[in-house]
Amino acid sequence: MIKQYIESNQQRFLDELFELLRIPSVSADSRLKGDVRKAAEFLVNKFKEAGVDTVELCETKGHPIVFAEKIVNPSLPTVLVYGHYDVQPPDPLDLWHSPPFEPVIKDGKIYARGSCDDKGQVYMHVKAFEAMMKLKTLPCNVKFMVEGEEEVGSDNLGTFVRENKARLKADIILVSDTAIISLDHPSITAGLRGLSYMEVEVTGPNRDLHSGVYGGAVANPVNVLSKMIASLHDENGRVTIPGFYDKVVELSAADREAINKAPFSLDNYKKELGIDDIQGEKGYTTLERTGIRPTLDVNGIWGGYTGEGAKTVLPSKAFAKISMRLVPNQSNEEITELFTKHFNAIAPKSVKVKVTALHGGQPAVTPTDSAAFKAASAAFQEVWGKKPIPTRDGGSIPIVALFKDELGLDTVLMGFGLDSDAIHSPNEHYGVKNFLLGIETIVAFYNHYSKSN
Amino acid sequence: MIKQYIESNQQRFLDELFELLRIPSVSADSRLKGDVRKAAEFLVNKFKEAGVDTVELCETKGHPIVFAEKIVNPSLPTVLVYGHYDVQPPDPLDLWHSPPFEPVIKDGKIYARGSCDDKGQVYMHVKAFEAMMKLKTLPCNVKFMVEGEEEVGSDNLGTFVRENKARLKADIILVSDTAIISLDHPSITAGLRGLSYMEVEVTGPNRDLHSGVYGGAVANPVNVLSKMIASLHDENGRVTIPGFYDKVVELSAADREAINKAPFSLDNYKKELGIDDIQGEKGYTTLERTGIRPTLDVNGIWGGYTGEGAKTVLPSKAFAKISMRLVPNQSNEEITELFTKHFNAIAPKSVKVKVTALHGGQPAVTPTDSAAFKAASAAFQEVWGKKPIPTRDGGSIPIVALFKDELGLDTVLMGFGLDSDAIHSPNEHYGVKNFLLGIETIVAFYNHYSKSN
Repeated sequence: MIKQYIESNQQRFLDELFELLRIPSVSADSRLKGDVRKAAEFLVNKFKEAGVDTVELCETKGHPIVFAEKIVNPSLPTVLVYGHYDVQPPDPLDLWHSPPFEPVIKDGKIYARGSCDDKGQVYMHVKAFEAMMKLKTLPCNVKFMVEGEEEVGSDNLGTFVRENKARLKADIILVSDTAIISLDHPSITAGLRGLSYMEVEVTGPNRDLHSGVYGGAVANPVNVLSKMIASLHDENGRVTIPGFYDKVVELSAADREAINKAPFSLDNYKKELGIDDIQGEKGYTTLERTGIRPTLDVNGIWGGYTGEGAKTVLPSKAFAKISMRLVPNQSNEEITELFTKHFNAIAPKSVKVKVTALHGGQPAVTPTDSAAFKAASAAFQEVWGKKPIPTRDGGSIPIVALFKDELGLDTVLMGFGLDSDAIHSPNEHYGVKNFLLGIETIVAFYNHYSKSN
Repeated sequence: MIKQYIESNQQRFLDELFELLRIPSVSADSRLKGDVRKAAEFLVNKFKEAGVDTVELCETKGHPIVFAEKIVNPSLPTVLVYGHYDVQPPDPLDLWHSPPFEPVIKDGKIYARGSCDDKGQVYMHVKAFEAMMKLKTLPCNVKFMVEGEEEVGSDNLGTFVRENKARLKADIILVSDTAIISLDHPSITAGLRGLSYMEVEVTGPNRDLHSGVYGGAVANPVNVLSKMIASLHDENGRVTIPGFYDKVVELSAADREAINKAPFSLDNYKKELGIDDIQGEKGYTTLERTGIRPTLDVNGIWGGYTGEGAKTVLPSKAFAKISMRLVPNQSNEEITELFTKHFNAIAPKSVKVKVTALHGGQPAVTPTDSAAFKAASAAFQEVWGKKPIPTRDGGSIPIVALFKDELGLDTVLMGFGLDSDAIHSPNEHYGVKNFLLGIETIVAFYNHYSKSN
């Protein structure tokens, strides 16, 4: 019945999703504030049409949160669906094969910024809900909380959650903002890394200088910053910030073995990325490096003359965006503090350093023995014909820790993307098949979860 | 007589210079090709008005060269004046207090891109020549060669010089494109560093990746580039490229002592630059580090996300512009080759590296015992009341070596800028006093030089 509903409505589902994808709701770009709001308003209307009892555009100090609910019967269990309608900036624009906000389907994939992360995945929930309403099969209560600041650190979600505890009362949180291993290997994310995202500014002389007149005598902030960044890893690929690993939970041999059981081909991995060699912390496999180990990456660097040709400048300033992925039991506040202290400590006297924390989130592990996780597993088994593999993901969804702390609720991370979907990159895409199977799997989750309660 | 001529014409001199400064002749910016040409045409007209026998806009494969001459009597000595009418890009624009191509006088200084480097200094020569023509005091022959590609490596000057050897026949080359120590301490540059200017590109994965999904397992090109740059200096501030110092001429204790006799206050230096400490090669003073030692500086770096806010990207590529200042007897071709080889050698297998040479020039030392150098010294003594100090400058004027090799001519570097003029930086300026005294000193040079021949 659900299969048929999806099949007969799939063109409309895609048309509606395309309409949402056309709105450039880049939360990081203050010039696009109006478009971010437009995306929220679009969802408000779609929730209404799908048959919620109430839906509200909730104002925050930043971008609004869309809250909607359908209470079938207060005695039934309640699922709280979380997602986000904001997207990453599309830069660098020139690497997109089609414009980021003009979605197109090519080879069975929807190409657009946000197609996978997270508009496409959020919209599966809206359409799964619509289907259950139309087919009169919704087996439990459902609430939706869709925010517009996930890509910039969910700054106002904490306040909203704390101020709306009663309204957000639920039994489980369901999030589709992660990936499966492949279409042949469905998986459920059982762990997520946390994040500390910093911006650093290194200032040398009080103005750009002529590198011929001053070079060699005055500290060059780009050279100094490079040296500081280089010193953040040792020869074994370990982060050198004192105390960085102190609280890291070391997994048992059995747990590590389980993680490494996931199908993984190093040759395919290298081939798909176009690299001749991998690189990471000594003593860990690629799956461990991205799943259970904390990391440090420069996300952006700039300073001096970056235009065409040659300019012999000794720049006054150099900048970098540096982020660290965290694992249980690291705390993002603590790591942010350790980084700041260390980065100031390693700066030579010849420069001044400014460190700013841009955003962060706690690492999280979700239990795999809960009724909800088992329901998600059964839903995949039913729709995909295969038992999903529990995985540890490298990405961060800081709100998982927030929900646990503030609402006391566990989260099920039932995502349908693929690592190769190029989220946060040019040419982000999402499989039409992933989108349609996702809707079906979500409906199956509701059924299994309701039965188990 | 010359003093009076300058005084009564100074407003017109400045008005004309301002007209030249208003033309944005940025040779590095291909969109401004027309403006670069306009600056050349402006000079053609001014040479005509000043009374040259012939003037020609000589086409090259790049920007044109202006050649003019006045032959008083073939038996008299001939001075060949070299300069350039192109300027550095004005970026970063937001740091200019007034627009770079709208010259203004503030506190006795002309603020504009090119005011000092080199339009202001070239124009002193045009007006010194005009004065001698009008006063009928030109004591020798004079030729002018003013190019439009100095700031991008003088790519086509070599060909022009080689193809016009007869036409460029002269006894000495006179260049005003350097600085004096201060208005109280006139000086003449007796040595110039060479230059090898490189651009490097480090490629990791074939696309920007999500730093959460891939971070820690895939080499990050920004981190890798930072590490490579950091490794280019050792703990003593020496460049680590194998063979880099092999041909460097080590100066005698007496020569080093002479260099360090120049008036220099480390406190004032640090204060003027707003730095708490200097930094450079161990065992050398600041004057030595910028005068007689080769150096390596990053002039620009970029990669990943550099916009507002946070984007958790593991970039595909990172770039840097890296230049080395060279001293006698280093060769820029050889150093370019050593750099390229070394940079490729230190790249880990996890990335691909591309190294491009952007431009270069040979280091040069000019004799201080020649008739021309002595005439320049006497000219300063006459006009400034003080004997000028011979200095070694950090900047590069690659054409000095070219003129020696191709024309067999020595160069006198009689510049009138100040190190604090912010050439190549925002708010470049040039003292009105430097401009006017410069004209007078140039006229005095012609007189002394003609007498000594």
